[in-house]
Amino acid sequence: MAKLITPRSEDYSRWYTDVVTQARMADYSPVKGCMVIRPHGYALWENMQRVLDRMFKETGHENAYFPLFIPKSFLAREAAHVEGFAKECAIVTHSRLETKVIDGKPVLVPAPDSALEEELIIRPTSETIIYFMFAKWVQSYRDLPLLINQWANVVRWEMRTRLFLRTTEFLWQEGHTAHATYDEAEIEARKMLDVYATFAEEYMAVPVVRGIKTEKEKFAGALRTYSIEALMQDNRALQAGTSHNLGQNFARAFDLKYQTESGDWQHAWNTSWGVSTRLVGAIVMAHGDDNGLVLPPRLAPIQVVVVPIWKGTDPVDRILAAAREVRDRLRQAGFAVRLDDRDNLSPGFKFNEWEMLGVPLRIELGPKDLEKGSVVCVKRPNRVKAIVPMSELERVGGLLEEIQKGMLEAARARRDAATCPVDSYEEFRRKIEDPGGFLLAHWCGATACEIAIQDDTKATVRCLAFGQPEEKGSCVRCGNPSTKRVHFAKAY
Amino acid sequence: MAKLITPRSEDYSRWYTDVVTQARMADYSPVKGCMVIRPHGYALWENMQRVLDRMFKETGHENAYFPLFIPKSFLAREAAHVEGFAKECAIVTHSRLETKVIDGKPVLVPAPDSALEEELIIRPTSETIIYFMFAKWVQSYRDLPLLINQWANVVRWEMRTRLFLRTTEFLWQEGHTAHATYDEAEIEARKMLDVYATFAEEYMAVPVVRGIKTEKEKFAGALRTYSIEALMQDNRALQAGTSHNLGQNFARAFDLKYQTESGDWQHAWNTSWGVSTRLVGAIVMAHGDDNGLVLPPRLAPIQVVVVPIWKGTDPVDRILAAAREVRDRLRQAGFAVRLDDRDNLSPGFKFNEWEMLGVPLRIELGPKDLEKGSVVCVKRPNRVKAIVPMSELERVGGLLEEIQKGMLEAARARRDAATCPVDSYEEFRRKIEDPGGFLLAHWCGATACEIAIQDDTKATVRCLAFGQPEEKGSCVRCGNPSTKRVHFAKAY
Repeated sequence: MAKLITPRSEDYSRWYTDVVTQARMADYSPVKGCMVIRPHGYALWENMQRVLDRMFKETGHENAYFPLFIPKSFLAREAAHVEGFAKECAIVTHSRLETKVIDGKPVLVPAPDSALEEELIIRPTSETIIYFMFAKWVQSYRDLPLLINQWANVVRWEMRTRLFLRTTEFLWQEGHTAHATYDEAEIEARKMLDVYATFAEEYMAVPVVRGIKTEKEKFAGALRTYSIEALMQDNRALQAGTSHNLGQNFARAFDLKYQTESGDWQHAWNTSWGVSTRLVGAIVMAHGDDNGLVLPPRLAPIQVVVVPIWKGTDPVDRILAAAREVRDRLRQAGFAVRLDDRDNLSPGFKFNEWEMLGVPLRIELGPKDLEKGSVVCVKRPNRVKAIVPMSELERVGGLLEEIQKGMLEAARARRDAATCPVDSYEEFRRKIEDPGGFLLAHWCGATACEIAIQDDTKATVRCLAFGQPEEKGSCVRCGNPSTKRVHFAKAY
Repeated sequence: MAKLITPRSEDYSRWYTDVVTQARMADYSPVKGCMVIRPHGYALWENMQRVLDRMFKETGHENAYFPLFIPKSFLAREAAHVEGFAKECAIVTHSRLETKVIDGKPVLVPAPDSALEEELIIRPTSETIIYFMFAKWVQSYRDLPLLINQWANVVRWEMRTRLFLRTTEFLWQEGHTAHATYDEAEIEARKMLDVYATFAEEYMAVPVVRGIKTEKEKFAGALRTYSIEALMQDNRALQAGTSHNLGQNFARAFDLKYQTESGDWQHAWNTSWGVSTRLVGAIVMAHGDDNGLVLPPRLAPIQVVVVPIWKGTDPVDRILAAAREVRDRLRQAGFAVRLDDRDNLSPGFKFNEWEMLGVPLRIELGPKDLEKGSVVCVKRPNRVKAIVPMSELERVGGLLEEIQKGMLEAARARRDAATCPVDSYEEFRRKIEDPGGFLLAHWCGATACEIAIQDDTKATVRCLAFGQPEEKGSCVRCGNPSTKRVHFAKAY
């Protein structure tokens, strides 16, 4: 608890790890690349799930659950898909351990006679098995659209991992839909991108750029991929969600066909879309400060903490009674409130701890406040205080909304300040190093230039943003003509 | 949709599969032993999760998430545990697929150079990795009790599987706690068994026997196991939930120690407890009939379906408007309502379909009802009708409660009728075949007798029920003295 958090200015990466571990959001596990999500991190994820799940259901989707295992041969059916996922996957080959004596010692080994006929892959994503099932369920145009979502764990064998942002196993949701026409699938893919953008901005208080991925960066097996891209405080971008128009690629691979109204058979059109526990990391990186976490009120597991203050001869009982009343009234009004009535810790210690845990609003209640019949409310992001009469506690709702709004505005201001047009490669190379951020540059559209820029600078095209104005220009790298600027950045 | 459901009397097992698949609760997957949970089944599981999650939180537990993978060496640390799980587990041995040319054809194979240093086991249960983490987090008595729950998928390599009841992968929750004393752990294990029993009876409408498992049947690694046991309509028992007092077995294996108030170090005391998607199967088997599913109102994803009835010259618009009003008013009152306004299907077809899907209450609304200003409510379990004036729609809440209560009472009556004392082995062997059910018989307590009875009759001791009266008797098998009857049954 008394450990220090490395300041962001000193080492942003260590700051991030310090915050995540000291706020007890997550911990390293004994399994390489896998993390443990601790209650304070998991409660945030649960709140995110609750909001997203409601948004999915409001847009007509139903939840289902598909197997963890993908038969090896399924991956191989879509050429680009297997190319994208075969190189980093967990492969199950046996179904029994047996004891073997090696050098005189008993050792547990996979029993040779339990070798599987066909190896199973732990799902890195579930397109293949889900569209196989869709093909069983869909016969007629009347069965479409089929709008399914799954909350699940997935595994991608990552070499370099980082708590929440990139782990071998992670939690996510994956939406999978089937439609009768290309247009319907395209509308769906865009609609779900909008759902993600709304969630990021209105709940996470993280502004995002919506756009389309380049051919090189699109999902393995997709016709095209849309994404939302956020900027972290160290001016590196983070892909916060993707939505894919899969065309008929998987429908062809899994023979997902339907009979049209006029009686002929056609392949269906698919979309898939997902966000993951990576978004927990995005919240930490977008809002945290040198005192720890800063959580947006609409997602915070604890929105308000009440800290009673007393000293030796103070009227402890009366203060505790008043603090309990504050807690109970706020709880009745629907807020997530915690009363910190621990008697072995000082108020200052408690302030620091709850700041570190990111609770948006602190309510202090001491003898003088009791006399005046008011409480002191302190906003976590900027420590601005407000005196609220006990008779007007409902104002807490307004304060929380101010905090939510302020966090989005601050993040947007940081993002906008770190977004700048760049017109020469020399400037590009300089600015991508310092200050970083989104560089708006012309690009010819050729993958060769995209790769060359990435090799030179580690920057990638984050997306071709929607609504980017038409503008004649020339590729920052090769000079060929371009009609729009695209968003470059170094990314997580 | 027009497929027939096999009657229970003809083939109970086929009846079960027919109901589960035709009500679109689940489907077989291309992965051996793994199922797909379809939306109508998953929505029921979500409702079960919501209630259980609230009950866990109300008893002080927090959710967290631990890795899917268990290092092989972890399993081996607790001797009884590895003995129980090593024989049926999914083993990950490689992390990359590569293409190899075999007989002139490219084939995907696990890349030999991606073999893992130590194999990973897909968690069959998470005691080992969770108590390893607990050991990192717990230092002092002040860190106890530690009360954690996890919602997760687990894998046990089952040879004979059955939708929901026994599948290779299944969804569950596993609670894991650490305490300072034996007594606290024992109280926790019993408390969570009571939570499960309350859930089974008050929500699932399934009466259960609470008790302790025999040494032979206890969890691999536990000091003792408690369970709740239900009886299905074919008079076979189903273990519906277990709660384990783990003693210090895992604390010793993973060095989970805490410093007491007086400064010395002690091993903590653990409990674990779980229920799974098997409970979905229990609901089907406990309440379903030859027309399909019957869902308890407190868990049903759709509690009320409104079916408007019209013919050629009937006032379609007015009936539809009234049906929508019924739906909206019931929705406003908090019920989960569906209006079936499909115009290409007859009312009779719809009645059958919603009965098959188990919706507890059907509301019919035709021209005559409209004239009278009332609706006809039909209870799913017994088709009893009630006429409810439109002005008193709130009575629907009462009808649903009657259905809930009636289902529990009917299930209890069936269970009690199928529970009988048995005093000779000859009678035991006869009755276990017909009619089956719970046989209350004296047993000496010796594992040898338990095994002999199982070998002879396939019946097992389900549990030593709490509150079973003391009674002098002699073991139904060997004649040795016994002080209490125990519950025998054939089980799923």
